[in-house]
Amino acid sequence: MPPAGELQHQSPSKDKQSNDAQSAEAAAAIAAAAADAEAAGLWTQIKAEARRDAEAEPALASYLYSTILSHSSLERSISFHLGNKLCSSTLLSTLLYDLFLNTFTSDPSLRNATVADLRAARVRDPACISFSHCLLNYKGFLAIQAHRISHKLWTQTRKPLALALHSRISEVFAVDIHPAAKIGKGILLDHATGVVIGETAVIGNNVSILHHVTLGGTGKACGDRHPKIGDGCLIGAGATILGNVKIGAGAKVGAGSVVLIDIPPRATAVGNPARLVGGKEKPTIHDEECPGETMDHTSFISEWSDYII
Amino acid sequence: MPPAGELQHQSPSKDKQSNDAQSAEAAAAIAAAAADAEAAGLWTQIKAEARRDAEAEPALASYLYSTILSHSSLERSISFHLGNKLCSSTLLSTLLYDLFLNTFTSDPSLRNATVADLRAARVRDPACISFSHCLLNYKGFLAIQAHRISHKLWTQTRKPLALALHSRISEVFAVDIHPAAKIGKGILLDHATGVVIGETAVIGNNVSILHHVTLGGTGKACGDRHPKIGDGCLIGAGATILGNVKIGAGAKVGAGSVVLIDIPPRATAVGNPARLVGGKEKPTIHDEECPGETMDHTSFISEWSDYII
Amino acid sequence: MPPAGELQHQSPSKDKQSNDAQSAEAAAAIAAAAADAEAAGLWTQIKAEARRDAEAEPALASYLYSTILSHSSLERSISFHLGNKLCSSTLLSTLLYDLFLNTFTSDPSLRNATVADLRAARVRDPACISFSHCLLNYKGFLAIQAHRISHKLWTQTRKPLALALHSRISEVFAVDIHPAAKIGKGILLDHATGVVIGETAVIGNNVSILHHVTLGGTGKACGDRHPKIGDGCLIGAGATILGNVKIGAGAKVGAGSVVLIDIPPRATAVGNPARLVGGKEKPTIHDEECPGETMDHTSFISEWSDYII
Amino acid sequence: MPPAGELQHQSPSKDKQSNDAQSAEAAAAIAAAAADAEAAGLWTQIKAEARRDAEAEPALASYLYSTILSHSSLERSISFHLGNKLCSSTLLSTLLYDLFLNTFTSDPSLRNATVADLRAARVRDPACISFSHCLLNYKGFLAIQAHRISHKLWTQTRKPLALALHSRISEVFAVDIHPAAKIGKGILLDHATGVVIGETAVIGNNVSILHHVTLGGTGKACGDRHPKIGDGCLIGAGATILGNVKIGAGAKVGAGSVVLIDIPPRATAVGNPARLVGGKEKPTIHDEECPGETMDHTSFISEWSDYII
Amino acid sequence: MPPAGELQHQSPSKDKQSNDAQSAEAAAAIAAAAADAEAAGLWTQIKAEARRDAEAEPALASYLYSTILSHSSLERSISFHLGNKLCSSTLLSTLLYDLFLNTFTSDPSLRNATVADLRAARVRDPACISFSHCLLNYKGFLAIQAHRISHKLWTQTRKPLALALHSRISEVFAVDIHPAAKIGKGILLDHATGVVIGETAVIGNNVSILHHVTLGGTGKACGDRHPKIGDGCLIGAGATILGNVKIGAGAKVGAGSVVLIDIPPRATAVGNPARLVGGKEKPTIHDEECPGETMDHTSFISEWSDYII
Amino acid sequence: MPPAGELQHQSPSKDKQSNDAQSAEAAAAIAAAAADAEAAGLWTQIKAEARRDAEAEPALASYLYSTILSHSSLERSISFHLGNKLCSSTLLSTLLYDLFLNTFTSDPSLRNATVADLRAARVRDPACISFSHCLLNYKGFLAIQAHRISHKLWTQTRKPLALALHSRISEVFAVDIHPAAKIGKGILLDHATGVVIGETAVIGNNVSILHHVTLGGTGKACGDRHPKIGDGCLIGAGATILGNVKIGAGAKVGAGSVVLIDIPPRATAVGNPARLVGGKEKPTIHDEECPGETMDHTSFISEWSDYII
Repeated sequence: MPPAGELQHQSPSKDKQSNDAQSAEAAAAIAAAAADAEAAGLWTQIKAEARRDAEAEPALASYLYSTILSHSSLERSISFHLGNKLCSSTLLSTLLYDLFLNTFTSDPSLRNATVADLRAARVRDPACISFSHCLLNYKGFLAIQAHRISHKLWTQTRKPLALALHSRISEVFAVDIHPAAKIGKGILLDHATGVVIGETAVIGNNVSILHHVTLGGTGKACGDRHPKIGDGCLIGAGATILGNVKIGAGAKVGAGSVVLIDIPPRATAVGNPARLVGGKEKPTIHDEECPGETMDHTSFISEWSDYII
Repeated sequence: MPPAGELQHQSPSKDKQSNDAQSAEAAAAIAAAAADAEAAGLWTQIKAEARRDAEAEPALASYLYSTILSHSSLERSISFHLGNKLCSSTLLSTLLYDLFLNTFTSDPSLRNATVADLRAARVRDPACISFSHCLLNYKGFLAIQAHRISHKLWTQTRKPLALALHSRISEVFAVDIHPAAKIGKGILLDHATGVVIGETAVIGNNVSILHHVTLGGTGKACGDRHPKIGDGCLIGAGATILGNVKIGAGAKVGAGSVVLIDIPPRATAVGNPARLVGGKEKPTIHDEECPGETMDHTSFISEWSDYII
Repeated sequence: MPPAGELQHQSPSKDKQSNDAQSAEAAAAIAAAAADAEAAGLWTQIKAEARRDAEAEPALASYLYSTILSHSSLERSISFHLGNKLCSSTLLSTLLYDLFLNTFTSDPSLRNATVADLRAARVRDPACISFSHCLLNYKGFLAIQAHRISHKLWTQTRKPLALALHSRISEVFAVDIHPAAKIGKGILLDHATGVVIGETAVIGNNVSILHHVTLGGTGKACGDRHPKIGDGCLIGAGATILGNVKIGAGAKVGAGSVVLIDIPPRATAVGNPARLVGGKEKPTIHDEECPGETMDHTSFISEWSDYII
Repeated sequence: MPPAGELQHQSPSKDKQSNDAQSAEAAAAIAAAAADAEAAGLWTQIKAEARRDAEAEPALASYLYSTILSHSSLERSISFHLGNKLCSSTLLSTLLYDLFLNTFTSDPSLRNATVADLRAARVRDPACISFSHCLLNYKGFLAIQAHRISHKLWTQTRKPLALALHSRISEVFAVDIHPAAKIGKGILLDHATGVVIGETAVIGNNVSILHHVTLGGTGKACGDRHPKIGDGCLIGAGATILGNVKIGAGAKVGAGSVVLIDIPPRATAVGNPARLVGGKEKPTIHDEECPGETMDHTSFISEWSDYII
Repeated sequence: MPPAGELQHQSPSKDKQSNDAQSAEAAAAIAAAAADAEAAGLWTQIKAEARRDAEAEPALASYLYSTILSHSSLERSISFHLGNKLCSSTLLSTLLYDLFLNTFTSDPSLRNATVADLRAARVRDPACISFSHCLLNYKGFLAIQAHRISHKLWTQTRKPLALALHSRISEVFAVDIHPAAKIGKGILLDHATGVVIGETAVIGNNVSILHHVTLGGTGKACGDRHPKIGDGCLIGAGATILGNVKIGAGAKVGAGSVVLIDIPPRATAVGNPARLVGGKEKPTIHDEECPGETMDHTSFISEWSDYII
Repeated sequence: MPPAGELQHQSPSKDKQSNDAQSAEAAAAIAAAAADAEAAGLWTQIKAEARRDAEAEPALASYLYSTILSHSSLERSISFHLGNKLCSSTLLSTLLYDLFLNTFTSDPSLRNATVADLRAARVRDPACISFSHCLLNYKGFLAIQAHRISHKLWTQTRKPLALALHSRISEVFAVDIHPAAKIGKGILLDHATGVVIGETAVIGNNVSILHHVTLGGTGKACGDRHPKIGDGCLIGAGATILGNVKIGAGAKVGAGSVVLIDIPPRATAVGNPARLVGGKEKPTIHDEECPGETMDHTSFISEWSDYII
């Protein structure tokens, strides 16, 4: 038994640890409660939108009730909607629905990412007229949600199932994201057709990626071989980024660019082969911290010295 | 009661107005009758093609009878075919069939545009071996017809239904045309996979657009932010045109070009970033009034000064 | 009756012809037996993979049994899988299954090409973790197999059926290969979304083609108007090759390139417009005989003189 | 030209004829308007029921919107509902929907009979809690409506189509009514499973028929060989009536009876072989004019002299 | 505050109540645990049967995995199987699966009744070769399980949903059980086609009912109007029992009988009209306590005095 | 080695055996060729009927082409039709089609029985207007064909598959025939709803069985416990025959009869309980050798002494 002094000495630190642990736990609980509240609030709004649309358009009411209004939570609604979209004659909707709902339930961070993605689409895309519009109709949004589930399965070493899901996502949404790819939250895949994201790609938070974008490999054998996209990036339509290159936070890649080398944070790369706006030596660094959110695709044009027509 | 003179004086002008109105009405009636006759003639030809194919290929006869030979009009056939293609487990084929047929019936201009599109595919695409081939198999053709219906719904402020349809067209055909986009007639979307056309885009008549073409926005908030494509343009595969730019009538955009600035009528733009063939100051103006019809993708190559390999 | 001498004179040559014919026949029989043995061995391996996965993942077992484990041969498995994927409400799965199986049975070279394609995916794509993974999930692989059947039908002048199949392949897999296009074996269509291959295109053996690649026409009227791709080529993502141009054996085309002129064997073309690495006059000829197999997309970067960022 | 006298003589009669014709026409128009009004009123009530149920039970709302609330008329709702129930992989729902709706539109008497049947179920069956309940869920009701359409097709000499429909009704509802059978209105097929009604059978108005009832033939070659059921009859569960026998108006046939001879009006037959209650010579004639409406299956028991247990 | 004496006086009784309550609770917990264990044991056996069959018959393995082997419990397996069987184009399988699983979860007595029914089929029906055979293939078994769910919904005043389910059960299985009917456990509906059980019917435990049996009403207006079947009864094929009559425990009703009056316990009734074997005054009382279990349909024949042929 | 004489003695007999074997083989070959010719002739006629109907009724042409006109043989047509009717979400049509076609191919007697059944329906049922009508629409006919396949599987000890098929036949056609039941050829199941035939039942050739007929067991444990129906019998609607009783060749059982004892050949039994027409001691023996073919259900009525109404 240790002497009292030691005990006294230790006690505070123990208490402190304990206090720290408690407050960390408390903070986590508070964060979880806040996330739940946000999701619940968003779900209430989605149902209100769907109810309004169902009343205005009886021809669509059945669709809105089956996909949204008959469900008690966002997770159930998405699980149902994705299950019906991704099922096939050999992968039944009931099996997928069950799988999706169980995965959502087992990991609340999936739902939180869904909420962030919905907000991203609503805020960034002027064509997105409501949350329910995104939830029901945006194949980029749906593909990302399904990917997060296949990614979860992949990390649980349920690889064949993850790959079967991957294949269905690619067939149904024309969005091909390898189950191993790590994708942040607040993501907008706008239009989404033809997006390809490879096995070792990593995408930060609040990134916007247009259709036909490739985050591809170098073709060399296994290993880390796909791009790393920093937070807040904006990748224009048809951009092709190949290899284990780093696109710095807040960078922009112009439409149709072919990028094979790192891009500094908040720089802009355009063209095929891509060049940095402002030049390689002293690239122009734009003010936008998060072009993935402002979605300004074309303002750099005046700075693009050789862009002449 | 006015004096006779006044009546006499008025009479001619009134008569003239009346005559004008009558002749306008008569002209419209004649035009409508001509359009009906053209559609009927085309439909007769399509049925003859389908009958010939059904006889030659019993394995396909069931398909040809259900899609073409059992129907009494082009509108019914397309409504049936699109209803079956675009339906899902939550949007039933009967609902869509009904919606499509009613929309076709309520606005004959839709049918006339369909006829013009069929003729466009048949004339411009050497791989199109018959009208029925286009009607049944061209996803670009089918996507455009479905878009016209979603556009009609959009203008009737049935936006949620228009967007649900938009979403299905994008999933099924990988062609993403916002319901608000205005599209002329005599349009060929060749191959069609990956075409994206934004909310405020406008496309004239007799335009040909290859696959992977983007008529995209600038990402700035709402408002008029998408390209305007003049009559008779030809937009090559993978071209990306961004922002509220004007592509003049009869202009050509080369495959893979990225265009962010206006292109004069009958000029040719190529490359990423796109440059005008002949130079910015004095671009070469080609002879073709309607390259969208001649579909000459590559003849400009000799004039493309820096195109060297 | 000829004199004995003539008979004697003829006999040897006849015998020789006969011997030659016999040995050719024998060689063909040996080759066929070897191909059968290889296919049988591969099929055994695929079933072993599927059995292992079914045991590890009961949620997927039903899928694996229906698609692989219940079938007695590779041909039956693929016919079943494709029939279920390509069917629609107007083209029933039973009809397609029957058609596919009969076609496979009538021409063993189709099965041999399938075997070569499976090996190609397994060897070249680091993300391909098993043969069964490719067989079930690679839409590029499935699209090619279905294309070979539609091509066979095309050559049998069953054109309307070939085109109906072509249309379904394009809708379901977003891969648009004209039934008349001639495609070798050992082909990898990686990711595959958006690939377009025109009517008179020819592709050699052991070629790898990434997604969004176009082998397009020039738009001129009928005739030979699409690219010819030599053995062992590698065509990067989003490359657009237009017109009856010849891509020499072992050549590489960089991602996003637009190619309108011939490329010499083992040369590399990059950019839009594409330029030969090393220059037009004396292009760099790489060592790789078959970049389609090594899949090195980006090593040329250091040689790409003006590729600066 | 006839003399005036004759004209005068004829005039009144002509006028009278004309007046008669006019008043007949007027009466028919009034009757048609009344029928339309009744149908409209009933449809309003059905929609109100469905709206109430959709609000109370979100899980069923999608079903109620797709089957009832999205439709503008009773005919459209039934055509949709039957089309979806009777379709198969080789008889598509869109085809059936179109056929049913066109048939309803071409002959308003079909809709009037539907209205009468709905009222019959609501009034006679204590388990029928609403009109919408019957419309959606009563397979006897649905079988009769589908039969009326197949009967209409039969009379138009579209026999193969009528028989294909007949076959689907028998498979889906287990109700086998030959398309040629003539059936009145205000009919209740309660429970309905196993009902068989032969080619030359005739059923009057306001008849109630329980499940497993057979109105069968005698097996002899063609010709009039099936029962004729008078107005207001009640045929108990499992009763078998064979041959061209006449069941008088208001007669009752007990459950499980086997009837091969005529039954007088308002008499009751029970047993196997069936005997008249009250005896052959002087059968008891009950007071009920229309037992098909009162549905009293068992009150005769006390009069059934030898019914002892 | 009460005086001590009262407290002391109350204490024992309180303790006793508390003890009683505790032991009742304990007994219930023990019973629940035993039921859980029985269900788990049966489920283990069913999976073993299915695994054996899947190995012996690859063509059926996919079916067995999807219906049984991929599920973690009997409730999930049945919910999946019933969801897929009872779904329609307007009532999706995912909705039904969810509803069934939630109902099973909310009330364990449903699962216990399922277990008893499986044992009943296995023991009583010589044609039932395994539990999995019954679970997958017996439409009487499946109809009863689905009925229990619709009955549960009915008691929760979710009547429209209960009736929609009722309707689907009647269409799919040709078994028509009103949701309000109360049915015990250990029930065998053998063959099942055509069974009709009315709204106020009550069926005890361990009853066997053959196909075509009707427990029907008297047709009089609302109220208690259907048969009450005691424990252990055996109701032969095609028997029709009408009205609020009481069939005593252990009674037998012969095939094809029509019963309108009470039957004493362990008596046997045969014929149309039904007579008691042994006569009305002194009916023969058989030894079998539970003919519903012994399933002896015909041994009474020698006692049936007037059964002569 | 035997002495020569024995050899000589044996030789002729050996020759004779050999001759006998040869002529037996030859006879079998001739019979097989005759059966093939008959089937081919019937198939030609069926196709002619279908072609005529397709021309007269375009709305049905797709159905007729997919079910009949696109197939090269009767076996293929039936396998396709049954595969599509009996499939479910867990038993795919392609699997069933394959199974059915392989079974037909492996045993030509199945096809011969199909031919005999088609002729039986055409000749005996005045409502059967063509062979194609029976092939497509008669659920009794279809149930029997599917049963023969499940019976074949049963005899190959593929019991679980046979029972899964049995279950689907019972659900889809409401015809419940145990896979072990042995059924002859030239069978007509008229209307068919509700027919139940037990495990050890045997049915001869040229038998006609109406709907709701039960050939049931006695409920006693395993063993031979179901009826044996002789050649040419006619079993009326709703007749219930229980136990291992023998219904002599050419016997008739009246509608609704309950039979528990043997019936002599060409006798007639009627009523519940069934009595022999003419009395037990000296039953009337009718002239018809094969009432199953003449289908005279009711001529015995005048002889039914106590049939009075």
